[in-house]
Amino acid sequence: MTEKSCGIAIIGGSGYGAGELLRLALGHPSVEVCCVTSRSHIGKKVSSIHTHLLGLTELSFCESVDLRQLTSYKKSAVVLAMPSGHAIPAIKELIAAGLPDNTHIIDLSGDLRLKDPGTHAAFYPEVPFDSDLHRRFVYGMPEFHSFRGMQGRLFITNPGCLATASILALAPLRDLATTGSVVIDAKTGTSGAGREPQPSMHHPGRSGDFTAYKVLQHRHEPEILQALGSPFSSNFTCMFVPHLLPLSRGIFVTAYVALQTEQQATALRDSYAKFYQNCPFIRIRHSAPRLVDVVGTNFCDIHAVSRGVQVVVMTAIDNLGKGMAGQALQNLNIAFGLPEETGLQQAALGPV
Amino acid sequence: MTEKSCGIAIIGGSGYGAGELLRLALGHPSVEVCCVTSRSHIGKKVSSIHTHLLGLTELSFCESVDLRQLTSYKKSAVVLAMPSGHAIPAIKELIAAGLPDNTHIIDLSGDLRLKDPGTHAAFYPEVPFDSDLHRRFVYGMPEFHSFRGMQGRLFITNPGCLATASILALAPLRDLATTGSVVIDAKTGTSGAGREPQPSMHHPGRSGDFTAYKVLQHRHEPEILQALGSPFSSNFTCMFVPHLLPLSRGIFVTAYVALQTEQQATALRDSYAKFYQNCPFIRIRHSAPRLVDVVGTNFCDIHAVSRGVQVVVMTAIDNLGKGMAGQALQNLNIAFGLPEETGLQQAALGPV
Amino acid sequence: MTEKSCGIAIIGGSGYGAGELLRLALGHPSVEVCCVTSRSHIGKKVSSIHTHLLGLTELSFCESVDLRQLTSYKKSAVVLAMPSGHAIPAIKELIAAGLPDNTHIIDLSGDLRLKDPGTHAAFYPEVPFDSDLHRRFVYGMPEFHSFRGMQGRLFITNPGCLATASILALAPLRDLATTGSVVIDAKTGTSGAGREPQPSMHHPGRSGDFTAYKVLQHRHEPEILQALGSPFSSNFTCMFVPHLLPLSRGIFVTAYVALQTEQQATALRDSYAKFYQNCPFIRIRHSAPRLVDVVGTNFCDIHAVSRGVQVVVMTAIDNLGKGMAGQALQNLNIAFGLPEETGLQQAALGPV
Amino acid sequence: MTEKSCGIAIIGGSGYGAGELLRLALGHPSVEVCCVTSRSHIGKKVSSIHTHLLGLTELSFCESVDLRQLTSYKKSAVVLAMPSGHAIPAIKELIAAGLPDNTHIIDLSGDLRLKDPGTHAAFYPEVPFDSDLHRRFVYGMPEFHSFRGMQGRLFITNPGCLATASILALAPLRDLATTGSVVIDAKTGTSGAGREPQPSMHHPGRSGDFTAYKVLQHRHEPEILQALGSPFSSNFTCMFVPHLLPLSRGIFVTAYVALQTEQQATALRDSYAKFYQNCPFIRIRHSAPRLVDVVGTNFCDIHAVSRGVQVVVMTAIDNLGKGMAGQALQNLNIAFGLPEETGLQQAALGPV
Repeated sequence: MTEKSCGIAIIGGSGYGAGELLRLALGHPSVEVCCVTSRSHIGKKVSSIHTHLLGLTELSFCESVDLRQLTSYKKSAVVLAMPSGHAIPAIKELIAAGLPDNTHIIDLSGDLRLKDPGTHAAFYPEVPFDSDLHRRFVYGMPEFHSFRGMQGRLFITNPGCLATASILALAPLRDLATTGSVVIDAKTGTSGAGREPQPSMHHPGRSGDFTAYKVLQHRHEPEILQALGSPFSSNFTCMFVPHLLPLSRGIFVTAYVALQTEQQATALRDSYAKFYQNCPFIRIRHSAPRLVDVVGTNFCDIHAVSRGVQVVVMTAIDNLGKGMAGQALQNLNIAFGLPEETGLQQAALGPV
Repeated sequence: MTEKSCGIAIIGGSGYGAGELLRLALGHPSVEVCCVTSRSHIGKKVSSIHTHLLGLTELSFCESVDLRQLTSYKKSAVVLAMPSGHAIPAIKELIAAGLPDNTHIIDLSGDLRLKDPGTHAAFYPEVPFDSDLHRRFVYGMPEFHSFRGMQGRLFITNPGCLATASILALAPLRDLATTGSVVIDAKTGTSGAGREPQPSMHHPGRSGDFTAYKVLQHRHEPEILQALGSPFSSNFTCMFVPHLLPLSRGIFVTAYVALQTEQQATALRDSYAKFYQNCPFIRIRHSAPRLVDVVGTNFCDIHAVSRGVQVVVMTAIDNLGKGMAGQALQNLNIAFGLPEETGLQQAALGPV
Repeated sequence: MTEKSCGIAIIGGSGYGAGELLRLALGHPSVEVCCVTSRSHIGKKVSSIHTHLLGLTELSFCESVDLRQLTSYKKSAVVLAMPSGHAIPAIKELIAAGLPDNTHIIDLSGDLRLKDPGTHAAFYPEVPFDSDLHRRFVYGMPEFHSFRGMQGRLFITNPGCLATASILALAPLRDLATTGSVVIDAKTGTSGAGREPQPSMHHPGRSGDFTAYKVLQHRHEPEILQALGSPFSSNFTCMFVPHLLPLSRGIFVTAYVALQTEQQATALRDSYAKFYQNCPFIRIRHSAPRLVDVVGTNFCDIHAVSRGVQVVVMTAIDNLGKGMAGQALQNLNIAFGLPEETGLQQAALGPV
Repeated sequence: MTEKSCGIAIIGGSGYGAGELLRLALGHPSVEVCCVTSRSHIGKKVSSIHTHLLGLTELSFCESVDLRQLTSYKKSAVVLAMPSGHAIPAIKELIAAGLPDNTHIIDLSGDLRLKDPGTHAAFYPEVPFDSDLHRRFVYGMPEFHSFRGMQGRLFITNPGCLATASILALAPLRDLATTGSVVIDAKTGTSGAGREPQPSMHHPGRSGDFTAYKVLQHRHEPEILQALGSPFSSNFTCMFVPHLLPLSRGIFVTAYVALQTEQQATALRDSYAKFYQNCPFIRIRHSAPRLVDVVGTNFCDIHAVSRGVQVVVMTAIDNLGKGMAGQALQNLNIAFGLPEETGLQQAALGPV
């Protein structure tokens, strides 16, 4: 084992997002997880919960972050991977406890994503709006260079999984005038629901099924609108409907846009290629993306099609990868001054 | 075994549609399959190909329809279940061979669905347009009473599976003024691709995958537009994208419409309930439909949601049931003068 | 609706077994469910829980069985579909409440299956042994004519799902001398675990997985030994290991036996055909059975292979069909004096 | 890109095994694929067939191996990844063309695995036995140190996937006296069938199914017997039945053995731990292994259970990983003098 220069602590380590971050960090040349907390599993081996990590990590769950441990690294960060409602108190506690000034904080929940108090209150009623923290936390989508060049401790709110796939589908169209509502039809694997058993995720009823949920009521819709910004958020409307695939991982988004002027198919594709030209995890495809090409990876595969003024854009990501832990690690790479693709270039198992 | 009064012959009996029709006829009190042709399996037991029917039918595949056999029933029909391009010659051959005047013909393929010669030529280039037959064949969607009251031999072209789910989703909105494009995002099981092995349906690559296909290029798009008719087909545009589920059976359609005036959610639901009030196979749901509730059945489950002028309608059917053989049998029930739900009221296996 | 002559009441109606029995009864010409109890859903529509039955039944859950309702039928039965531990008190309560003498009782749980007090205590420690009831309840496997000809109220304990598939695989070999342990390797869908969410049945972890459980410790092992009886239970040993398929329904059993003398493959197959010659739900296959041919049905497909003294027998059933509600209805048909196949001859949806 | 010191050429590069080897080599610090041949795809980008590798490799398929390219590396090897019947002629051709003496050859097919001419002829009738090559090729299972210390060019025949999981399950029992037949019940994902579409792997019929195939007739049975060697192959019999899971990847083997003397559960587990103590890819589990913990990896998870003289051992591997390309790369690591775990320590995606 070589010594790694960047250490991260995970708060809330028994969930799927934490498990994925642990998996990814194992293969990262410079980043390691030094500490994983879990109130309900204190003292247990991490591999007793994340059973696929047996033989790859000797970490055990601890009660809280040991700040001295973090400071033994050149660079460090705390990753919050808790259910909605816990991030803000935890952040305040960390800072009160003396979290070093240059230790970054990244939150995987949605608690700090929506910047408009009214919208936040409508979609996160269980989370009191915190003007100071909501202002400080930057929406961390690496393709949009949101926090490059910022100094000192970075406060990063990691994008939502469905929002990530939707925003990456639509961002290149921001400068084109649209008509009517943009439609975002999203399909997601079940791991997005988290590790807690619940009737709607009970295998006998979910296996072999496909359905929609939170129709026109999902929290990621305002997040998408906020991220796409003006002109999208001011003069356009959107219909966002997520669906549940009978698969564990993967998000496929089909976005439908009507433009005011016709777009040639090749010009459209070229504009996507240009828009994402320096983005190592965006792959422009010449046919519809496939989940099997992205599951387990940090890639977002995109294919855009046009017919006259009509445009259909499809994206595929792994909800726990580019949609969560992968993107968090990409954000941390940037925060740590590493090439953003470091440790994230695994291929999918493929259409095998 | 009681004697059944209605006999049907199936031409092209080794495919999935024929298999489903055979399965359904077994449980039908008045209809039986008396003859199944298959060029490649002449003489073989039907249950050697449709292995789930072992012990339930003693039929063997024959080379061609025995017309005398058909006429031994009070009522009769021929069902064409062949790949695209074979229906028109087969129909001419049957009539030339003396098919009785009161024997109905129903075609499961798309060959005779599109009535506009130009549209037909664009989407079915391999099928020469036949003015006479294209005019005679009625699009057989029982909810729209297309051929009730017609006399003599009925010529029925059975709707496409994706088209069925889409039309049933949108028809109740026909009288409402819309803005922008209607978006139809369809997700289908793989059995719609038929029994012939092909790379895109090879299990190792399809299992665990989700993707789109024939984006804005599917044959069912013009069929939907034609069926919805004016005002839809004249003043509106549509974007239709089918996707492939990692499941064998089931179609889920999510249709997005922007209206010119707001619709209350309850008014919308009521209008659907009213529109389909005498339709035994339409079930209006109070939450998103689920494939597990319709697979194996002739039901179409519908749920409609509104938010201001935005409307989202979801439908779920079995592509081989209501989307193919079930609807064909429903059409035959009507053609034979039977209650349309006869023999078609099985429930799905459910969740579970 | 025709009037049906046989009525059944279901106690514990919200589970999967009850749902399947309801589904099957809907298509049965002589049996109907007149009453379904559920403590936690009193007053709710049955179709609000068993959502696939929407439009097919107007029943609501009630608190307890209305005995007068039952006696309005020519023949009647009570089906107990509760979790382990509840059957014996419920039976005593029914009888104390005046359950008519000719109303049969059938219990779907394992509480009354094991007849040896010691074995029962070892495998059902939560269920006090009741000498009287344990003696009265007959193990109801229709292929073995267990209770034909018995008079008055029948007390039937319905076989376990894994036990059913295993017993049907091995029974024809009972008269042949074996050597070594019989191995029973069973694979089951997840619906056998019931409707209650639990970590091991959480979709994200179960989808895409395969594993074993209760290795050499499953309750159905002594049930199998008891049913096969001597000589099997006296002079042979058995290794029974169940596994979990990433499917909702279906059981596939592979049984391995070493005989003392060689068996020709054809002689072996013939002996199976002969053994089950009057059994309408046993289908002897000429190749390995497939789950897709039996899911949703009451069939048990069997294929037996030999190589010298080695014999491999494979069976496939639906765990909720022949493994539970289907077999219960088959038992009830016999109890009611109906042909045993009545209402149970549906085909599987098939491949496809 | 750092320069890698070991180069491999793959002959027959369009199949699943080649795809997996390419994927694994991408993450390997010292090994790279310098050349991939494919008769049917000459000139095409490798990522046009192995679509998950888009953006990760610029290789194109070539017609034949360029020997000079190979010799530009310090160490090199040729990997044969062709369908059965092609390896022997290809090897002769390579050697005739002047393959350098120190370039290793590893064959992924079964053509050279069986060393007894009669057994080979019975199971590989399409492959003429080649005394010289069959003698030279060493069965390459790293846990058994088969070719360590050998000099010059290594000729390695890579074990079969089902054989690997079976042998690893049973090898630690070799010194214990058994009674009766050993039973090996194997369950495999469909990717083992290769990339060529075929009716038995058509998605609509395979999805949702489970069945057995080649019952007591599979080529891996003699391979297992040969590998376990005496005393197993001399005095014991075996029943090997493979089954098809409705999953793309993964093998789960349940092996049943009756011993002559009792084994304590803990002693049994300890003996497994000791047997595999220096094997980096064997993980001894305390409960049944799960496919989700090994898919995508080179691990073999093992759990052994005993009850008196009865022993059940379960193993789980990825058929394309430890069962094929992973094991090949592990063999190549050894052949190249690298630590055997180099580049192979990825974790599975897990549950989830």
